[in-house]
Amino acid sequence: MLTLFPLLALLQAAPAAAAPLPTDPIAADWHAIPDDQILVMTLADNRIVVIRLAARFTPAHAANIRKLALAHWWDGTAVYRVQENWVTQWGGQPGDTADDPANKPLPAGVAAKVTPEFTIPGFAPSQRLGKADAYSTASGYTTDGWPIATDGAAAWLPHCYSMVGVARDSDPASGSGSELFTPIGQSARRLDRNYTVVGRVVEGMQYLSALPRSGAPMGMYKASDSIPIVSVRLASDMPAAVRPHFEYRATDNPRFAAVIAAREHPKPPTVGGGAAVCDIMPGVRRAGAR
Amino acid sequence: MLTLFPLLALLQAAPAAAAPLPTDPIAADWHAIPDDQILVMTLADNRIVVIRLAARFTPAHAANIRKLALAHWWDGTAVYRVQENWVTQWGGQPGDTADDPANKPLPAGVAAKVTPEFTIPGFAPSQRLGKADAYSTASGYTTDGWPIATDGAAAWLPHCYSMVGVARDSDPASGSGSELFTPIGQSARRLDRNYTVVGRVVEGMQYLSALPRSGAPMGMYKASDSIPIVSVRLASDMPAAVRPHFEYRATDNPRFAAVIAAREHPKPPTVGGGAAVCDIMPGVRRAGAR
Repeated sequence: MLTLFPLLALLQAAPAAAAPLPTDPIAADWHAIPDDQILVMTLADNRIVVIRLAARFTPAHAANIRKLALAHWWDGTAVYRVQENWVTQWGGQPGDTADDPANKPLPAGVAAKVTPEFTIPGFAPSQRLGKADAYSTASGYTTDGWPIATDGAAAWLPHCYSMVGVARDSDPASGSGSELFTPIGQSARRLDRNYTVVGRVVEGMQYLSALPRSGAPMGMYKASDSIPIVSVRLASDMPAAVRPHFEYRATDNPRFAAVIAAREHPKPPTVGGGAAVCDIMPGVRRAGAR
Repeated sequence: MLTLFPLLALLQAAPAAAAPLPTDPIAADWHAIPDDQILVMTLADNRIVVIRLAARFTPAHAANIRKLALAHWWDGTAVYRVQENWVTQWGGQPGDTADDPANKPLPAGVAAKVTPEFTIPGFAPSQRLGKADAYSTASGYTTDGWPIATDGAAAWLPHCYSMVGVARDSDPASGSGSELFTPIGQSARRLDRNYTVVGRVVEGMQYLSALPRSGAPMGMYKASDSIPIVSVRLASDMPAAVRPHFEYRATDNPRFAAVIAAREHPKPPTVGGGAAVCDIMPGVRRAGAR
């Protein structure tokens, strides 16, 4: 039998245990995320999933999503799709169709279709990876901890594992943000610039990634298998006593550059030479009271 | 509420529903996988996981693994580690250490350490992707349906989601194949050329990917949470009446080149421009009696 712990340490922290990590607790590099950019989704059995909204890059979708949360619109909807090596999707009910009069109507003031925010014109990463990938000419991280890819003209949030995308109809302009998905396997980067990425699951991803896969077409759950959504709240709308706060790891500093360098060029005997944007996700963590 | 089905079709089959797919049932392109390259792992509750062995590329590890299967060595071991967005690992027991006299001894004739088969010198992909990625100078597929990456001098099987790697101690030459892992989230390509990839889960991946994540260090399960392995058998060692057969999709033909091209350059309005090797996995399927 192998010694498991050195093995496991290598598997987890490769290149090397002492290398700098995206979550290193360097006080100067952690900054508050505004409470109105934190969405708290509570699933049945008190499974809590926290989403950070990319409000700076997708303001129209963030506005719609905030209205849906403030109206408590998601309460009573469900996680209704879990497709192996693809996505978990929520915010509707199994079997809903556009023509079904039983579908839950959107609240007054919430747009049924939001103009896509697929890309951010003129934006560039503040920290760059050393190598391009197949989906962009360069990639890296924003100052405030988002992974980002670019073609030189525009930038976009990539569909990494745990990023949150806006589900839509075949019309690219048909998403509202009421139904959302997250990649649960191999990253879904072929969706980049075709779907609006509005956020990232920053806590409780395991409650979306470890759900039973559905064998039905597209991974749709039967109604009896779907996971009830008890509530979705904007943290800023929660009572102060129970409101969670979160912080992001800033990337525009030499400490985060060292995190990237350690991954791209690990210490021998570990072999490296590059890293992909989705493989180095800047840390996001719970913070104390404010 | 959105029309879900067009949405879902696009999310699954992007770029377009009519584009050629890695699993298209073109009779001439499907070929038998030898039964002695198929490993059938039965977990508790009759959850069956099928692994295709990369015996051509990792002959020393495949020989060891065949001996372990023929000796029924894995029967009574467990899936003992499930770490969120990293790996599921099996073939031991929670808490095992190298010094524990209670560890299960390997059968006679099975090497406790196998010389690493991290790379395949002089080998090149038979179908190439249009763009490099951060982990290799080129990548693509072998004639017989394996994803493969290269630095120009040697090639290797990449740590895509669902590929099977050999767990090891901190010594790179310390793996035996008795303990195996598979990436269950973002692909684990930083392990490329550092761990030996011996196969791919070709059926039942959902029984490894949807297991509850452990919050313990490295995702180690408590003994009471571990998933018993009922049996692991080489298909060629199973009675003919119950022995499964599998086929792979050949890639050295214009039909598979078209699959790649459709992913790299999807039809408008879908935006593309490239694809990564782990995102186009050649089909593997069950076949009829032989």
